[in-house]
Amino acid sequence: MTKWVYSFGAGHNEGRADMRNLLGGKGANLAEMASIGLPVPPGFTITTEVCTAFYENHRNYPADLKDQVDTALARIEKAVGLTFGDKTHPLLVSVRSGARVSMPGMMDTVLNLGLNDETVEGLAKAAKDERFAWDSYRRFIQMYGSVVLGVDHHRFEEIIEHAKLEAGVIEDTALTADHWRGVVDSYKSMVAQEIGKPFPQVPHEQLWGAIGAVFGSWMNPRANTYRRLHDIPANWGTAVNVQAMVFGNMGNDCATGVCFTRDPSTGENMFYGEYLVNAQGEDVVAGIRTPQPLSKSVAKAGEVPLEEAMPNAYKELLQVRATLEEHYKDMQDIEFTVQQHKLYMLQTRNGKRTAAASLRMAVEMAHEGLIDEKEAVMRVNPASLDQLLHPMLDPKAPRTLLAKGLPASPGAACGMVVFSADEAESRAAKGDAVILVRVETSPEDIHGMHAAQGILTTRGGMTSHAAVVARGMGRPCVAGAGGISVDYNNQVLSAGGKVVRAGEVITLDGATGEVFVGSVAMIEPTVSGDFGTLMDWADKHRRMGVRANAETPVDAETARKFGAEGIGLCRTEHMFFDPERILAVRQMIISNNEAGRRAAVARLLPYQREDFRKIFTIMAGLPVTIRLLDPPLHEFLPHADQELQEVATSLGTDLNTVRQRAIELAEANPMLGHRGCRLGISYPEIYEMQARAIFEGALAVAKETGKAPHPEIMIPLVGAKKELEITRAQIEKVATEVFAETGTKLEYTIGTMIELPRAAITADKIAEVADFFSFGTNDLTQTVFGLSRDDAGKFLPHYVEAGILPKDPFVSIDVEGVGEVVRIAAEKGRSTKKDLKLGICGEHGGDPASIAFCEQVGLNYVSCSPFRVPVARLAAAQAALGAATDRTA
Amino acid sequence: MTKWVYSFGAGHNEGRADMRNLLGGKGANLAEMASIGLPVPPGFTITTEVCTAFYENHRNYPADLKDQVDTALARIEKAVGLTFGDKTHPLLVSVRSGARVSMPGMMDTVLNLGLNDETVEGLAKAAKDERFAWDSYRRFIQMYGSVVLGVDHHRFEEIIEHAKLEAGVIEDTALTADHWRGVVDSYKSMVAQEIGKPFPQVPHEQLWGAIGAVFGSWMNPRANTYRRLHDIPANWGTAVNVQAMVFGNMGNDCATGVCFTRDPSTGENMFYGEYLVNAQGEDVVAGIRTPQPLSKSVAKAGEVPLEEAMPNAYKELLQVRATLEEHYKDMQDIEFTVQQHKLYMLQTRNGKRTAAASLRMAVEMAHEGLIDEKEAVMRVNPASLDQLLHPMLDPKAPRTLLAKGLPASPGAACGMVVFSADEAESRAAKGDAVILVRVETSPEDIHGMHAAQGILTTRGGMTSHAAVVARGMGRPCVAGAGGISVDYNNQVLSAGGKVVRAGEVITLDGATGEVFVGSVAMIEPTVSGDFGTLMDWADKHRRMGVRANAETPVDAETARKFGAEGIGLCRTEHMFFDPERILAVRQMIISNNEAGRRAAVARLLPYQREDFRKIFTIMAGLPVTIRLLDPPLHEFLPHADQELQEVATSLGTDLNTVRQRAIELAEANPMLGHRGCRLGISYPEIYEMQARAIFEGALAVAKETGKAPHPEIMIPLVGAKKELEITRAQIEKVATEVFAETGTKLEYTIGTMIELPRAAITADKIAEVADFFSFGTNDLTQTVFGLSRDDAGKFLPHYVEAGILPKDPFVSIDVEGVGEVVRIAAEKGRSTKKDLKLGICGEHGGDPASIAFCEQVGLNYVSCSPFRVPVARLAAAQAALGAATDRTA
Repeated sequence: MTKWVYSFGAGHNEGRADMRNLLGGKGANLAEMASIGLPVPPGFTITTEVCTAFYENHRNYPADLKDQVDTALARIEKAVGLTFGDKTHPLLVSVRSGARVSMPGMMDTVLNLGLNDETVEGLAKAAKDERFAWDSYRRFIQMYGSVVLGVDHHRFEEIIEHAKLEAGVIEDTALTADHWRGVVDSYKSMVAQEIGKPFPQVPHEQLWGAIGAVFGSWMNPRANTYRRLHDIPANWGTAVNVQAMVFGNMGNDCATGVCFTRDPSTGENMFYGEYLVNAQGEDVVAGIRTPQPLSKSVAKAGEVPLEEAMPNAYKELLQVRATLEEHYKDMQDIEFTVQQHKLYMLQTRNGKRTAAASLRMAVEMAHEGLIDEKEAVMRVNPASLDQLLHPMLDPKAPRTLLAKGLPASPGAACGMVVFSADEAESRAAKGDAVILVRVETSPEDIHGMHAAQGILTTRGGMTSHAAVVARGMGRPCVAGAGGISVDYNNQVLSAGGKVVRAGEVITLDGATGEVFVGSVAMIEPTVSGDFGTLMDWADKHRRMGVRANAETPVDAETARKFGAEGIGLCRTEHMFFDPERILAVRQMIISNNEAGRRAAVARLLPYQREDFRKIFTIMAGLPVTIRLLDPPLHEFLPHADQELQEVATSLGTDLNTVRQRAIELAEANPMLGHRGCRLGISYPEIYEMQARAIFEGALAVAKETGKAPHPEIMIPLVGAKKELEITRAQIEKVATEVFAETGTKLEYTIGTMIELPRAAITADKIAEVADFFSFGTNDLTQTVFGLSRDDAGKFLPHYVEAGILPKDPFVSIDVEGVGEVVRIAAEKGRSTKKDLKLGICGEHGGDPASIAFCEQVGLNYVSCSPFRVPVARLAAAQAALGAATDRTA
Repeated sequence: MTKWVYSFGAGHNEGRADMRNLLGGKGANLAEMASIGLPVPPGFTITTEVCTAFYENHRNYPADLKDQVDTALARIEKAVGLTFGDKTHPLLVSVRSGARVSMPGMMDTVLNLGLNDETVEGLAKAAKDERFAWDSYRRFIQMYGSVVLGVDHHRFEEIIEHAKLEAGVIEDTALTADHWRGVVDSYKSMVAQEIGKPFPQVPHEQLWGAIGAVFGSWMNPRANTYRRLHDIPANWGTAVNVQAMVFGNMGNDCATGVCFTRDPSTGENMFYGEYLVNAQGEDVVAGIRTPQPLSKSVAKAGEVPLEEAMPNAYKELLQVRATLEEHYKDMQDIEFTVQQHKLYMLQTRNGKRTAAASLRMAVEMAHEGLIDEKEAVMRVNPASLDQLLHPMLDPKAPRTLLAKGLPASPGAACGMVVFSADEAESRAAKGDAVILVRVETSPEDIHGMHAAQGILTTRGGMTSHAAVVARGMGRPCVAGAGGISVDYNNQVLSAGGKVVRAGEVITLDGATGEVFVGSVAMIEPTVSGDFGTLMDWADKHRRMGVRANAETPVDAETARKFGAEGIGLCRTEHMFFDPERILAVRQMIISNNEAGRRAAVARLLPYQREDFRKIFTIMAGLPVTIRLLDPPLHEFLPHADQELQEVATSLGTDLNTVRQRAIELAEANPMLGHRGCRLGISYPEIYEMQARAIFEGALAVAKETGKAPHPEIMIPLVGAKKELEITRAQIEKVATEVFAETGTKLEYTIGTMIELPRAAITADKIAEVADFFSFGTNDLTQTVFGLSRDDAGKFLPHYVEAGILPKDPFVSIDVEGVGEVVRIAAEKGRSTKKDLKLGICGEHGGDPASIAFCEQVGLNYVSCSPFRVPVARLAAAQAALGAATDRTA
C-alpha cells in the first residue's frame, strides 16, 4: 500500500526536511520543526505523488487516499481535543499548497476551514468571543470563495465596503460581531448567486474542495507558464498541507508575525522581524495596520515590540531562532502565531537575502563555526557579486522608468545625454558626467565610451560591441533598448511619449536594463573585508585557473587587482582602434598589394611592440594569451569620404580606387567571411608583424625585469589543421629571426581558438600542431546555432520568453548543443595530447552556469572580462566543490 | 632479408599485376605480361620500398640493394646473351620510373644506357650499323644529360641544329653515322663544361646515376606539388624499372608504336594505333615524322599500315591485343617495339577514354561477356555523364580564350552578350541566342537566365545564385570569372585587354569555366541506347533512392525524364520570385502587423495551391518533399524607389515608412539571421498558408487522379526540438482544419532539414518529433566551416590550390568535418527512431564523391538538380557496389 499521507506534530512525525521532493518544502520543514521539538500545530501532508497520480488517472485520487486522510485527521482531532465539524468543539484547519520550490500561480492558503453556520456558534462559545468567530467565518468564506470556488475577490470587498459604509466606520477593526454576521449572510447569498448553489456547509466537502483546488492549480495556465520558464518538470507535482488552526486573532493575547534569523539586507547577526497583535495570516503583509518590531533594541518611539507585549512568547521565539539556525545552518525565514500567549511555528525556510547580506552571513557563519569554509563558498551566488562591485541604485529612491533594454554591463550610472563619442569626450573633459547614447556603437566610439559614465544603445544584444566593450571597461551599459528611438539630427531620444534632449539627465541600471528619466540616487559599492576572505576561501577550493580578457594596460591592471592569474585573451584588433593607428590599419586592409600592406604593418609594429611590452610588464611571470588579428573587417573599413580620402592619400592613390576597394571588401556575411587566420594566410605579413612585436616586446621585458614573460600565441578561426600548420610555421620563422637578431631566446607556445564546429570535430587532428586550445564560445555559439549575435535581437528574446530556448545562449552556454561541441573538442584534443591546455575565453567565461560546465568538461582555466574575475573565481570554486560532491555522492 | 628487386621476363617472373603498390604500375604490368607469355624483354624492378627506405635513411640505399641489382642484371645478361659494359656485345638497358599512379614531374625514361665510347663501337659491329649505334649513343647522352645530369635540353638541340646546318640537311634522318659521331663529341664537351666533369663512361656508374635520378625526382618540387594536390602520400614512393633494350631504330625491319585495344574516342571495338618504322621511343609522339596506321582497313591512300609492312609482327600484335583485353578485362593502352621483325611489348595499362567511349565500351564488354553488369556500372565515371547530356565544344574547333571562371553548370553555350535580364528576355523573344552577363545574379534575373543560352558572372562561387539556378535549369554557366570586369553603364565587358560590347558574341564552356571570344563550333549531345542500358543496370544495383530538387513543373518533368523517384527538395521561396507574386511577398515581409501579413499570404495562397497541384500531378504516386519558406530575406527586400512605392501602396502606407522598415529588416549576417523556421515561429500565418496550399493542392490531385500524393513537409533551419514541435503543431492544426472542411484525409509526414550543427548534435531529441531528416549540406557546410558561400570566393580558391582544403567543400562534401557532423546526426537520429528516413538535398546530392559518402552513412536517398539525376543514379550504384566490395574484402 502506498503511503499517501504523512502526519506531523503532537509527537508523531513521519516526515523530515530531506523529504522535500515527496512532501514539498513547507510540509518537509513543518515535520522537521516538529521533530526537533518546536511547537508546531499538528497536521498532515498529502504527498506530491498524489498530485502525479491525480493527473495520470484523469484527475481521480488514489482509492485509498480518503482513508489515509481520515486517519490523519482523526489523529489531529485527538491531539487537540476537538472534532472536525463538531457543533460545540469544532476543529478548524488550514489547507496550504507546498511544491518542491515555491511557485507563483499556485493556490496558496485557505484558513479556518471547517466553519459553517453551526460550528461558528460552537467556536464563538468555546473562544468566548463572538466577534472572533464571525470574523473567522467571513475570512474563510472569502478565501474559500475566491481561491476554491473562483469568485472574483472584488465581490467580497464590495460587501465589506458596503457594510462599513452602513455602519459608518472606516476600519475593519471597528466592525462588530453583528456586522460580521451580516457580512457572512451577504457573502453566502452572493456566492450562491455566483456559483449557482449554496456555499458548502459540510466540513468534509470543504476539505476535499480545498485539496482539489490545490491540485487543480498545479496545472493552471499561470503555473504552467512559470514551470516552463523555470524548467520545472510538470511531474514534480505539489503537496497539500492540512494543519490544525491556531489563532492570532483571538484577542489581545494573540499575535501573528514573520521574522528572519539575521538581517536579510545587511546580513548582520540580529533578530529581524515584525508582528501584529490580534491578527491572522495575511494581515501582516496586507498593510492595513502597521506591524510592530520584535525587539526592544530596534523599537522606535510609540512602537510596541513583542519583547514587551508578550515577553514569554518572545523569549521562546528567541530560543526557536537559535535552534533553527543551529539546525538548518542557514538564515531562516520564519512564520509564527501566538495564541493566548502560546507560541506556534507555522513555517520555516531559508531566507532570501541581498548580495551583501549573503556574503556577510556566509563569512560570519563560517567564523562562528556554524558552517565550514567550503559551505560558505557555496552559499554566495557568484552573479550577485556584481552588486557588490558596482554602484547600485538606492532601492528607496523614487524613479521614473523611461524604457527597458538588456542588462548588458552591471552597475548604475547617471549623467547627461550625449549622442556622439566626440561630445562624450569633450564634455567629460570639462568634468561633466555623461551617458553616451547610440543606436549601436562601433570601434570608433571607444574613446567616448571610455569617457562616459554609462552607455545606452537601442540595438544589439548581450554580446554586441557596446556590451562587450562596456563589460571590459567596467562601464554600466544598457543595450538593445528597442523601445527608445534615437534621432541624431535633432539630438533627441524618445520612448513611450517621453522625450529626452541632449544635455538632459538620465540614469541607467545596468543590472536590470532599466533606463530612468532624470537622476536617481545611488549607493556606492563598499567592498568589505568579508569579500577578501570569501575570495581567499574560493581560491583555496577551486581547480580551474581564472584569467582575464584584456588588451590595455588599464584592463590588465584591473584584472590583476581582481585576482586574475594571467590574460586568457588579448584581442589585438582592439589595439588597432586607436585613432592614431586606424589609418595604418585601413591602409593595410585596403591595399591590394603586399608592398602596401608591408608599409602599413611597418607603421603598426612599434605601437604593437609597445602594447605588448606594457602588458607583459603588468603580467610579469603570468601567462598572456595573445590572439593574432581577427578583424571584424566591416568595423575597420572607412566609410565617410574624409576617411576614404585619408586612406587614398596614405596609399598614394585616388578616392575612387579606395572606394571601389572598400566595396569589393564588403562582405555579405562578415561573420562567415575573410577573417581570422584566413586573412593571416592570405596576407602573411600581418601575422609576421604581430609575432615580431610579441617577441621583441617580450624580450625587452625579460631584459628589463629579468622575468621572461610566457606568451601564448593564439591563431583565430582555425577550421583545418593545415591553417594552423601554416600560420605556426610563419610565427616560428619570425621567432627564429628575432632570436637570432637579439641573441636571446624565450619560451612561447602556439595554439588556437576553437570557435568553429569544424575545428571541434577535427580537434584530434588540430591538436597535433597546437600547444593549447581556447574555446571561443561567442563565435562557436553563432556557428553552432547558425545565429548572428548582431541579428538575433529580432527573435531571440521571443525564443527565450516562449521557452524555445531555456536562456540566451550568448549569456549562458547552451550545454546541450554548443556544450556538446566543446566536450567533443576537449575529448578529441586530449585523445591526441593528454595534457593539452584547455581554456575558454568567450563571454561565457564569466557566467557561473557556464563555468560549472567548464569544470565538468575539465578545462584548465576560464577567462573573462576583468570586472567578472571575482565572479569567476567564486563560480569556479563552487563548480569544483559541486563536482567533488557529485563524485562522492 | 628484404627482397628489394623483382625480376621479370625470360621465364623468371617474380611480380604480378596486383603488386602495383610494391612494383609500381609499369613494373607490375611488365611482370604480368611476361608471366602470361607475352614477349617482354627481360628486366627487373627496384621496389617502391627502396624509395621509402632511401628517404628514411638520409638518401642512402639499403645495404643489400647493390647485390640484388647485380644478380638481377646478371640474369638479364644471361637471358639475352650480352654483357653490360662489354666492348663487343654490350647489354644496353632502359631505366624508367613507375609509381603506383602515373605522376607528372617525375623523371621518366633513359634509353640505351650502357653505351660509352667503347661499347658504341661494339654495338655498331654487332648490329652491323654504325649510324644506328652513334644515333643511339647521342640519344643516350641527350636523355641522360638532361634528366640525370640536369643539363638544359636546349643545349643539346642547339648542337643538333648546328650539325644539320653544317651538313646542309633539314631532317635528323639525313644525318650520317659520321655526323652523329661529331654530335656525340660536341655533346660530351658541352656536358663536361656544364657539369664540371666528363660524361660518365662507366656503365654501372651510369646505371646508379639513373636509378638515383628516379628516386631523387620523387621529391622534386613539381612532384611534391602534384602529390599534395592529388592527395598522394609521399610514402608511397616510386619503383625503378631496368630492362634490356630492344631497338625499333635498327633498320627498316624495325619499328615502334603505341595502340589502344579499342577506339578511345568512340569506344568502338576496333584496333586503334600508330607506329613508325626505324624509330625509337619518343619519336612516335614527338611529331617529327608522321606515324602510320596499324590496320589496312583504316589506312588512307599513301599510308603504309603495319599490317602490310610487317605482317607477321602485326598478326602477333593482334593476338597480343586479344590476350590483353581478355586478361585485363579492359581496354589497354599498349607500347611495343619491333626489332628485326620480332615483336616486343614494353608497356600495357588501362587506356584513357572519352565519356562516350567509356559508356560504349562498358556496355559492349558486358554484352560480350568480358565483364559483368556490375563491373560495367563501375567502369563509367558518373561525372563524365555531363559530357553526354550537354552540348560540348568541338575539340577541334579553333578558339580565342577571353578568361576563365568556375565551371558552374556544364554544357557549352554561344550567343550575343546582354547585360540585363530584361534585355535577355526581349532579345530571346526575337529569336536571338544570348548570353546573360552579370556581376552576380539575383532572383529578379530568373526570367533572363531562363531566356539565355548561358550565364556568365564575374563574382560568386560554385554555389552562388547563378550557379545553383543555372544547374537547376540545365543552363551552361561560368561563374566568378574574376578576370572579367563588367561595365553596365557602357555596356561592355573586358578582360586582359580584350573588350566585348553588348551584342557581340561569346562562347562559354560550362564544363571547364572557359569563356571564348566569338563563336566556337559545338557538338550536340547524342544519348545512345547504351546510356539507357547502363542506367538500367545502375538502378538494379543501387540501394539509395534518387530524387530531384525541383519547384517548377518544367523542373519536375525534367526530373521524371531523367529517372528521379520523387522530389527531395521543393524550395517554396523559389516559387515567390515570380513578378506577379513578388509584390505580395514583399508586402508579407514588410508588413509589421499580423493583419497586413494575413492579407498578403491570402493573396499568395491560390498561387501556392496551384503550384503544388501541378507538381503533385507530375509526381503522382511519388514522394514530394516541400520545404516551407526559408527566404533569403535580403533577396526579397525591395530596393529601388519604384519597388518601395509599390509595396507602400499595397500596404496603404508611405514610401518612408516602407524604406525605414526595409532598413530595419536588413541584416548584418543574413545567413545567420531571422530566417527559416524562426520566421515561421515569429509569423505563423506564413507557414499556415503554405500548409493549407499543400493540403488543398494534394487533396485536389487525389480527387482528380484517384492517386493521393504523399507530401513530406520539411521545416527549415531547425536548431532546437521545440522549434519543430511548435511548427509541427501549426501544420497539424491546418491539416485538421482542411480535412474537416473537405471531409477527406491524406497521409503526410513532417520532418526537418538538418542544416545547423546544433540540429545535428541534438538530432536524437529532434528525431522525437520528426518523421524524416534531410541534410541541407549547403548551409551545414557554411556553419560547420564558418564560411559564407557568398564571401568564400576571396580565399577559398587559394585554399584549394594551396592544399589547405583538399577540395571545395561546397562542391564535394568535406567528409572529415561536415561529413562527421552528418554521421553524428544520422546515428543520433536513428538511435531515437530506428527507421528514420534520411536524405540529402544540398548541392552535394549530385556529386559522386559525396554520394559515396551518403552510401557509407546509410542515407535512404539523395536529391539533386534534375540534370544531375543520371549522375546520381550511376554514382549511387557505384557506391552501393563499392560498399558491397568493402564488406566482402
